[in-house]
Amino acid sequence: MAVEIPSDELHQVLVLSPPFEFTSLESQFQNRFQFLNPWNSNLPLLQFLISNAQSVRACLVMPGGRLAVSSAILDCLPSLELVVTTSAGVDHLHVAEIRRRGVAIAFAGNLLSQDVADMAVGLLIDVLRNISAGDRFVRQGLWPTQGDFSIGLKLSGKRIGIVGLGKIGSEVAKRLEGFGCRISYNSRTKKPLVPYSHYSNVHELATNCDALIICCCLTEETRHLINREVMVALGKDGVIINVGRGAIIDEKAMIECLIQGEIKGAGLDVFEHEPEIPKQLFNLDNVVLSPHAAGTTTESIVGLTELAFENLEAFFSNKPLVSPFLD
Amino acid sequence: MAVEIPSDELHQVLVLSPPFEFTSLESQFQNRFQFLNPWNSNLPLLQFLISNAQSVRACLVMPGGRLAVSSAILDCLPSLELVVTTSAGVDHLHVAEIRRRGVAIAFAGNLLSQDVADMAVGLLIDVLRNISAGDRFVRQGLWPTQGDFSIGLKLSGKRIGIVGLGKIGSEVAKRLEGFGCRISYNSRTKKPLVPYSHYSNVHELATNCDALIICCCLTEETRHLINREVMVALGKDGVIINVGRGAIIDEKAMIECLIQGEIKGAGLDVFEHEPEIPKQLFNLDNVVLSPHAAGTTTESIVGLTELAFENLEAFFSNKPLVSPFLD
Repeated sequence: MAVEIPSDELHQVLVLSPPFEFTSLESQFQNRFQFLNPWNSNLPLLQFLISNAQSVRACLVMPGGRLAVSSAILDCLPSLELVVTTSAGVDHLHVAEIRRRGVAIAFAGNLLSQDVADMAVGLLIDVLRNISAGDRFVRQGLWPTQGDFSIGLKLSGKRIGIVGLGKIGSEVAKRLEGFGCRISYNSRTKKPLVPYSHYSNVHELATNCDALIICCCLTEETRHLINREVMVALGKDGVIINVGRGAIIDEKAMIECLIQGEIKGAGLDVFEHEPEIPKQLFNLDNVVLSPHAAGTTTESIVGLTELAFENLEAFFSNKPLVSPFLD
Repeated sequence: MAVEIPSDELHQVLVLSPPFEFTSLESQFQNRFQFLNPWNSNLPLLQFLISNAQSVRACLVMPGGRLAVSSAILDCLPSLELVVTTSAGVDHLHVAEIRRRGVAIAFAGNLLSQDVADMAVGLLIDVLRNISAGDRFVRQGLWPTQGDFSIGLKLSGKRIGIVGLGKIGSEVAKRLEGFGCRISYNSRTKKPLVPYSHYSNVHELATNCDALIICCCLTEETRHLINREVMVALGKDGVIINVGRGAIIDEKAMIECLIQGEIKGAGLDVFEHEPEIPKQLFNLDNVVLSPHAAGTTTESIVGLTELAFENLEAFFSNKPLVSPFLD
């Protein structure tokens, strides 16, 4: 049985996320760390940090588009040495600013890759085969009266283009091989040990594929990478799946292409301004909308909690981080 | 260019399906066969057959639970030698009665296996990861106000039990290997060249699995094979996918198990009395309802049309059927 440490001797960890995302972590960690939670205070965030967090060395962040770790926040944390985030993407962190201050970053690493890849394949099948739209059709009681439902497209044998063949993209490719799909990918450099066709240009990839699956990170280079020209190159039977970040697609152009039938459909787990979503998407039958849930399973939450804990323990014990984020 | 044959010299083919399922076939075949379509007549079906179909040697049937090829129909077709169905299942045919009269059967063979397997995997991911339910959540505008959506279960690594390891079941297994799932199966006899664990008893399979995927045919042996006891053995985190036939599951027992949380969820492409569906299912968030669409894609319809055509051509040319149904 673990020895109970008096709370005034526990290491302080600042929590930079709304409390509803934090409940399960807090209850498991509270006998190991003293959590400093600005959301329980009436003070504005920055004032809270100035008053309470001057000696804080580590902070914990959960993503969701609600709060970025900004320069203003970092300015209020002079003792900060570590940011632990529970996501695989780090676009909610100002990485350059964090680096400039010599602060380390720990992230989810590859822990979410399988779940995200599973969701990407699920969204792909759903869009091609109209699963969510068929579920709506049945629940509305239309089957007995309208007869056959709109016909989908076959997945087996399709040409799939993976945008960003990192860990998640590789897991997607492995799964789709089992469906007899022909895989190709886009990345800056050709990967030496990969059997799939490489396109250094995403427009060329789209021209040669039936579906694009966005698995890359959001950076200044990938912002609006999937623009109108890429979608037109993908073509009217083409579909787009996004499990990366919303802003990798030019969302306004995508909605126009979806409405005008310039692409066939889209399966979207992420959006440019989530959780706000353009209302036009709600009326489209050729899209599947998912609330940024690709990495979230009962199993992954347990894993992320353990990983965050291990990173914090390692840091306070002066050991190397378990899953450091390295550019 | 094909030579146009005068219509009174074309072979007659009786169409035993409602016309809305037949449009695409008719337009492609009408210069090769003379179609006899009871649905265009004011006469009751049997009377139409007695008056018009006494010399008909071949009939074409599309399934959908709307019409079975019954003894009464067969009695009205004394010259019948061939039934061509465009489905992979033959439960809409009275096979024993057809056989007893020496009538041959051609069916879809393995043509739909890939599409059905794709759908089975799609339904499995959807149920585990709440994709259709998440799509409803987002479309209802609940994401910004309610925050995180209900958390799903991981697919990778799960123990999957396939009920009926024929062509469809094997295609499902091949796909799920790519997700790192552990596959086992139930069939009367162990398959010699298959690497998966065999259970001769479906109850035992359910006890050892996280998900059951029903891929077998509906026969008197498999009717209500998945009963309450099997579902309880599967357990409260277990899910059921059905791409076989509705009546393989005891639907009433399944609904009770779903409502009471004795199983986690179900993805259903087929129902006992489709297109009629128990209304209780419409209110459940842990089911995905699909209008018997697993085998239906733009590509499979083209393939089925060609296959039906090839079987009819072979028959009228006294050649072996391309895809005979053999018990």
